[in-house]
Amino acid sequence: MRIAYVGPEGRTRVLQSWASQGVTVETRSGNFNGAIESSYDEYLYIPGLLETVGRIERDGFDAALIGCFGDPGLDGVRELVKIPVVGPAEASLHVASMLADRVGIITATGEIIPMLRRLAERYHVDRHLVGVTDIGCPVLDIRRDPDAQYPTLVQTARRMVDEQGAEALILGCGSMAFYAERLHEDVGVPCVNPLRVGLKMCELLVGASLTHSKLTYPFPSSLRASSEVHSVAR
Amino acid sequence: MRIAYVGPEGRTRVLQSWASQGVTVETRSGNFNGAIESSYDEYLYIPGLLETVGRIERDGFDAALIGCFGDPGLDGVRELVKIPVVGPAEASLHVASMLADRVGIITATGEIIPMLRRLAERYHVDRHLVGVTDIGCPVLDIRRDPDAQYPTLVQTARRMVDEQGAEALILGCGSMAFYAERLHEDVGVPCVNPLRVGLKMCELLVGASLTHSKLTYPFPSSLRASSEVHSVAR
Amino acid sequence: MRIAYVGPEGRTRVLQSWASQGVTVETRSGNFNGAIESSYDEYLYIPGLLETVGRIERDGFDAALIGCFGDPGLDGVRELVKIPVVGPAEASLHVASMLADRVGIITATGEIIPMLRRLAERYHVDRHLVGVTDIGCPVLDIRRDPDAQYPTLVQTARRMVDEQGAEALILGCGSMAFYAERLHEDVGVPCVNPLRVGLKMCELLVGASLTHSKLTYPFPSSLRASSEVHSVAR
Amino acid sequence: MRIAYVGPEGRTRVLQSWASQGVTVETRSGNFNGAIESSYDEYLYIPGLLETVGRIERDGFDAALIGCFGDPGLDGVRELVKIPVVGPAEASLHVASMLADRVGIITATGEIIPMLRRLAERYHVDRHLVGVTDIGCPVLDIRRDPDAQYPTLVQTARRMVDEQGAEALILGCGSMAFYAERLHEDVGVPCVNPLRVGLKMCELLVGASLTHSKLTYPFPSSLRASSEVHSVAR
Amino acid sequence: MRIAYVGPEGRTRVLQSWASQGVTVETRSGNFNGAIESSYDEYLYIPGLLETVGRIERDGFDAALIGCFGDPGLDGVRELVKIPVVGPAEASLHVASMLADRVGIITATGEIIPMLRRLAERYHVDRHLVGVTDIGCPVLDIRRDPDAQYPTLVQTARRMVDEQGAEALILGCGSMAFYAERLHEDVGVPCVNPLRVGLKMCELLVGASLTHSKLTYPFPSSLRASSEVHSVAR
Amino acid sequence: MRIAYVGPEGRTRVLQSWASQGVTVETRSGNFNGAIESSYDEYLYIPGLLETVGRIERDGFDAALIGCFGDPGLDGVRELVKIPVVGPAEASLHVASMLADRVGIITATGEIIPMLRRLAERYHVDRHLVGVTDIGCPVLDIRRDPDAQYPTLVQTARRMVDEQGAEALILGCGSMAFYAERLHEDVGVPCVNPLRVGLKMCELLVGASLTHSKLTYPFPSSLRASSEVHSVAR
Repeated sequence: MRIAYVGPEGRTRVLQSWASQGVTVETRSGNFNGAIESSYDEYLYIPGLLETVGRIERDGFDAALIGCFGDPGLDGVRELVKIPVVGPAEASLHVASMLADRVGIITATGEIIPMLRRLAERYHVDRHLVGVTDIGCPVLDIRRDPDAQYPTLVQTARRMVDEQGAEALILGCGSMAFYAERLHEDVGVPCVNPLRVGLKMCELLVGASLTHSKLTYPFPSSLRASSEVHSVAR
Repeated sequence: MRIAYVGPEGRTRVLQSWASQGVTVETRSGNFNGAIESSYDEYLYIPGLLETVGRIERDGFDAALIGCFGDPGLDGVRELVKIPVVGPAEASLHVASMLADRVGIITATGEIIPMLRRLAERYHVDRHLVGVTDIGCPVLDIRRDPDAQYPTLVQTARRMVDEQGAEALILGCGSMAFYAERLHEDVGVPCVNPLRVGLKMCELLVGASLTHSKLTYPFPSSLRASSEVHSVAR
Repeated sequence: MRIAYVGPEGRTRVLQSWASQGVTVETRSGNFNGAIESSYDEYLYIPGLLETVGRIERDGFDAALIGCFGDPGLDGVRELVKIPVVGPAEASLHVASMLADRVGIITATGEIIPMLRRLAERYHVDRHLVGVTDIGCPVLDIRRDPDAQYPTLVQTARRMVDEQGAEALILGCGSMAFYAERLHEDVGVPCVNPLRVGLKMCELLVGASLTHSKLTYPFPSSLRASSEVHSVAR
Repeated sequence: MRIAYVGPEGRTRVLQSWASQGVTVETRSGNFNGAIESSYDEYLYIPGLLETVGRIERDGFDAALIGCFGDPGLDGVRELVKIPVVGPAEASLHVASMLADRVGIITATGEIIPMLRRLAERYHVDRHLVGVTDIGCPVLDIRRDPDAQYPTLVQTARRMVDEQGAEALILGCGSMAFYAERLHEDVGVPCVNPLRVGLKMCELLVGASLTHSKLTYPFPSSLRASSEVHSVAR
Repeated sequence: MRIAYVGPEGRTRVLQSWASQGVTVETRSGNFNGAIESSYDEYLYIPGLLETVGRIERDGFDAALIGCFGDPGLDGVRELVKIPVVGPAEASLHVASMLADRVGIITATGEIIPMLRRLAERYHVDRHLVGVTDIGCPVLDIRRDPDAQYPTLVQTARRMVDEQGAEALILGCGSMAFYAERLHEDVGVPCVNPLRVGLKMCELLVGASLTHSKLTYPFPSSLRASSEVHSVAR
Repeated sequence: MRIAYVGPEGRTRVLQSWASQGVTVETRSGNFNGAIESSYDEYLYIPGLLETVGRIERDGFDAALIGCFGDPGLDGVRELVKIPVVGPAEASLHVASMLADRVGIITATGEIIPMLRRLAERYHVDRHLVGVTDIGCPVLDIRRDPDAQYPTLVQTARRMVDEQGAEALILGCGSMAFYAERLHEDVGVPCVNPLRVGLKMCELLVGASLTHSKLTYPFPSSLRASSEVHSVAR
C-alpha cells in the first residue's frame, strides 16, 4: 500500500514510523510553503494541491493524506479523484467522537478558531465539540521551536479539561500534532494526533476497499470533455 | 453608493435597473469565464476572485456582490477586505427564511445539489430547506437559451410545492435568476432572485453602515507584514 | 415607496434620515403606549396592532415595520395582509447571522431574556446566538434618559465580546437601537440597529418585489366570508 | 382538587368523567366563541383568555387547562399566574414523545399546519414529529357533525402510519380529540386525546406540587405597581 | 389502579402517600440491591428487572415505575410488556421541559454525569438542559444519611441557578428525590422529584388509557415462539 | 497486535483475511448463541459480554471488536476496560459519514429499525442518515442461506439510492456484512461492511495508541473495592 502525504517536507520519516507493515509513505509537498492560518491562505494553496493530488492518483498511490489540519480543498480533491483522500481534521474529529462525548481542539492562534468551528459543523461533529482554544503562537513559530510551546500547550489542555469539560483533545495544527502522546501522558485524557490518525484512516479505507461516494463528490463536468489524461485516470 | 458585481459580463444593465436611486452598479468580471458547477471549479476560480475583490476595495467601491450562487470564496474574501461582500446564496437563503417556513432551491444540474445542501448547512438555514432539485440542464446551456428551459422550471417548481411542501423557492443559479418574477406569477409562491436580493442586500448593509465582523473573518496574518498596499487598504 | 412604522411617535425623522432616496416613512402608532416587556404586554398590544396594519395595507403603503424588537404578532399580521411586514428582531437576527458566526443580543431588563431566546429559536438562528444579556434598566427609563445608560451598555457589550465570544451584537430594544453606530465605534464589532436594519429590510423586500408566502401565513378563514373590506384589500 | 377548563361549553361532563377521584372540573368559557384556525384568530382571543385565567386563579382553582390545541397565549398566561396552566398541545406532544419515537399530528384544515409545526419546534419535540396532516374539514364543521368525518380520520391516520412512519398519533384539534380511543382501536397505534391528557397533566402537576418557573415566565413588570388585585393574587 | 414500583424496599409508604385516591402502590424490588452508578451496574441489573416487570404484567398491575433515575432497560422492558412502564428520568425531563426553558440536573457523583447527559439526548430534551452537576457523594452514602448532604445540595442548586441559568431543577437520583419540595422552598425554582413525577405519570397514562407504541418497542421475535407464558401475557 | 472478535464462531478466517500484516484475530464467542433482534435480546446478552471482554483484557489482547451491529453494551464495556473496544455500528457510521453526505442502513427485519435509528442519534451521526430499511428476513434465516437474500438486498439498496437519496450504504447486520464488496459492484455506491471496518478501526486505534476516555466511560465505582482481579487489570 502506498500513501502520499501532501504537506511540508521533513515529516516522511515519522509518518513512515507510524505506518503498518507493508505500507509506504511518500511526501508530495506540492506548492506547500509556509503556514495556512486563514481561509484566504487556503484558497491560494488549493489550486496547487488539486494538481498535486491529481498527479498522485495517476502515479498509482492508493490514498492521499492532506497535510494541513484545516483540510483545505477536501471536497474539490475528492471530486477530482477516485482514491480515498483523508483530511486530518475530519478523521480526527470522527475518531475523537468515538472515544469521548466531549472533545476540545487546541490550535495555534486565535485567528484560526472560527475556521475550525465551521469545520466541525461541516462534518456534523459539533455536538461533540466543547470548544476550540489557541496557545497564542503562530504556526511558523511553533514549527521553528516546538518544545518552547509545550508548557503552554499543557496548561491550555488542562484548562480545557477542567473548565470546559473536555474528555478528549485534538491537536488542531500539524505542527503541534507530534506532542499528542506526550500530552496524553501529562494531562490524562486521549490526545489525538491528526496526522497519525489521518495516516491510519488512509490505511483503514484502503484496507476496507472503501473510498468516497461519487454521488456526494461528482467528477467535475468541466473536466469531462477536456482532458484525456483525466478520463484515463478514472 | 457604488456596488461592484463580480460575475459574467452582460448583466450590468439589468442589475442597474434593480438598483435604488443613487446606486451605481459596475461589473468586474475577474477571470470569470464559464460555469461553476463543482467545488473543483470554484477552487480554480477563487484566487482570481480574491484579487478582483481586493482591487474593488482599493478602487473605493462600497460593496461587492459575488456573481455565482455557490458563494465561492466568500469567507476568504471577507478576511481580505473590510467592505461588505454579499454572497447571493447566503442573502437569498436568509431572506427566503423570513418569507416562508419551508424553502426549496432549484438549480441547474444534479451534480450541484450536494454543494448547495452543504451551503445551506454552513449558513444554518437548513432547518428551512425542504430540498434542492435540478432541472437537468448544464449552466452554459441555460445561459445560451434560457427560455427553452422555462417550462421545465415551472414543472419542477410546482412539484417542489406540491410534493415537498415548499412554501417559497430560490432560483439557485445565476443564469436562472432572471425568471424569478415570472415564476412567482406562474406558481404562486415567492420566488427569490438571488442576484436581485444580493444586490439589495449590498444596499441594505451599506445603507445601515454594516459590514462583516473582523472577529469572524480576521485579516490574514500572512498579509500583515508583506504588503503596503494591503495595510493602506485597511 | 411608502413604509409605515408601527411604533412610538417621535422617531419618524430619524427613520426618514436612514431611508433611501425616494422612500417615505410615516409613523402609525396604533395603540402603542408604553413599553412591551413581557409576553403578557405583547398579547394586550397585538389586537390593536392587527387593526393598524390592516389599515396600513388599505391605505396603500408598500410595507410595514413593527416598532418593537420582540416582533409582537408578526405571524398574525402576515396572515392578515399581503404587503411585506418586517419584524426588527427577525431582520436583525438574520442580518447579524450573515455578518458573524456568533451573535449576542443586549436588551433592557432580565425579564425580557427568555422571550428573546425563544424568538431566536423561532427564527432558527439560535445556532448563531451566544447569549442574551440585559443592562438592568426598564425600557421606559432608557427612553427617558438614554445617555445615562450608555456606559453600562458599553461595559455589557465588552463583556459579551470578551467572555461570551460574541463577534457581532444586536441592540435588542427599540429604545437602545440608536446607539448602534456609537457602540460599534467604541467596542469594535458590528452592532446592529434593529430599527434601521428593519427599515432597510422593508426597502429590500419591496425593491425585490417580494413578500411573505401565503402558504406559510394563510389568510384567516374566519375573515373570508365576514368582511367586504378585507376581500377588497386582497 | 379543582381544575378550570377554559374552552367551549358542553364538555364539562366528559372532562369530569376522565378526572380522578376527588377532582372537580368546571368550564370557564371566557369569550370563546367559534373556532381558532389561525394565529390571527388566536391573537384576538388571547386578551379575553388572559382575563379569564387571572380570575380563575383568584377564584382558588388549582390549575387551568386551555381548551384549544394551539395553546393560545400559554406563555402570557403563565407570566400572569402562579397556578399551573396546561396547554393540550404541549402536554400531548411531550406525552406522545414518551410513548413513541415518531409522532404524527392530525388536524382539521391545511391552514393550521404551519402553526402546529412551529408549536412542535417551540416545545423542542420536533425531532419526534414525522408530520402534520389535515382531514380537510373546518373545525366548526367537525364540531357540528363529528361522526361524518370519522372515516376520513381513519384513512388519514392509516396513511400517516404506513407512509410517514408514525408510531403514535395526536388528534390535533379539540373537536376531534374525543375520537382518540376509537381510533386507537381501529388503527392500532397509540392515539393521544389532547384534552384528556391535558386534564391528566393538570392533575399530575397539582399532585406533584409543581408549577411553571417564574424565571422562565416572570410576572409582567407592567402589572407590578398598577393593581392591588394582582398583588393580592400573588 | 395498581402500580408496581420496581426499586429498593422501604419507599412504599411515601409513594403511597403521593398516590391519587383509588391508586395502590406496591414495591417489587427484584434483584435491586445497592446503587446503580454506571452503565456497567445497569447492565448487570437489567436481566433481573426484565423478569420482574414481566411478572408484574402477568400479576395484573396497571403500570410499572422503574426505581432508578437512569431508567435502566426502559426500552427492553417496553418491548416485553404492554402495560405502561415509566422511567423517572424520562418523565421528569419531559415535565421539567414544560415548566421551564432551562433545566439543570443534580446527581450524586461525577461518574454518573456522562450517562445522564446521554439520557437527555436519548429523550431529545437536551435543548432544555443547561447542565448536570453532582454533589460529590456516592448514592449509598446519601441513602445512609440524606440529611447530611442537604446543605451541599442547596449550594449546588443555587450555583446551577445563578451561574448556569437553570430555571428549574431535577433531583437526578432516587435517594435525593425526597428533598425536592424542601429544595423548592429554599432555592425558589421548581424542583422535580423524579419518583413522585414518575408515579404521577403512571397515573396519567393509565388514566388516559395510553401505553407505549408497539411500533417503537416491538415484542421481541425471540420470544414469539418460545414461551406460552409470554404469549398468554400478550 | 492481537484483536479479539466477540461474536459467533466461524468468522475468524475471513476476519483474519482482512487484517493487516502482523495482526492476529481470535474469536471469543462468549455466550453468543443466536440472533440479537431487539433491545430485550441485547440486555440478556450483555452480562456475558461484559465478562468476556473483561477476560479479553486480562488475556492481553490489544483491542476488542463487538460482533453485533447493534453495539450491545458498548458503554458498559468501555467503563470496565482500558483497551479500545469497537462497536461495528459506531465505526461504520462514522466512516460512512466521511465518505458521503447521505447514508442509508439496510438491516434484516423491521423490528430492528427503531433501535438502529436511536443508535445513529446516540452517535450524533443522524444528520447523515437518510433512513434505515429492512429486507424482511430474520437474522438466522440470512445466516442459514445468505445467498438467497442477495437479490432482495440489491433491490433494497437501489431503492435507497434512487428514492431516499442515499449516497453510501451500511450493511447493518453482521450476517449481511459479507456482501458489501459485491453490493458496491452491483449498486455503484460505497457499501460499508461493518465487521471489516470495525476490525480496521481496532487496528487504527491500537496503531495510533488511542483508547476511549476514562472521563466519558469511568471505571465503575462498584468494582473499585470489590475485586483484586479488576484492580490488577487496571
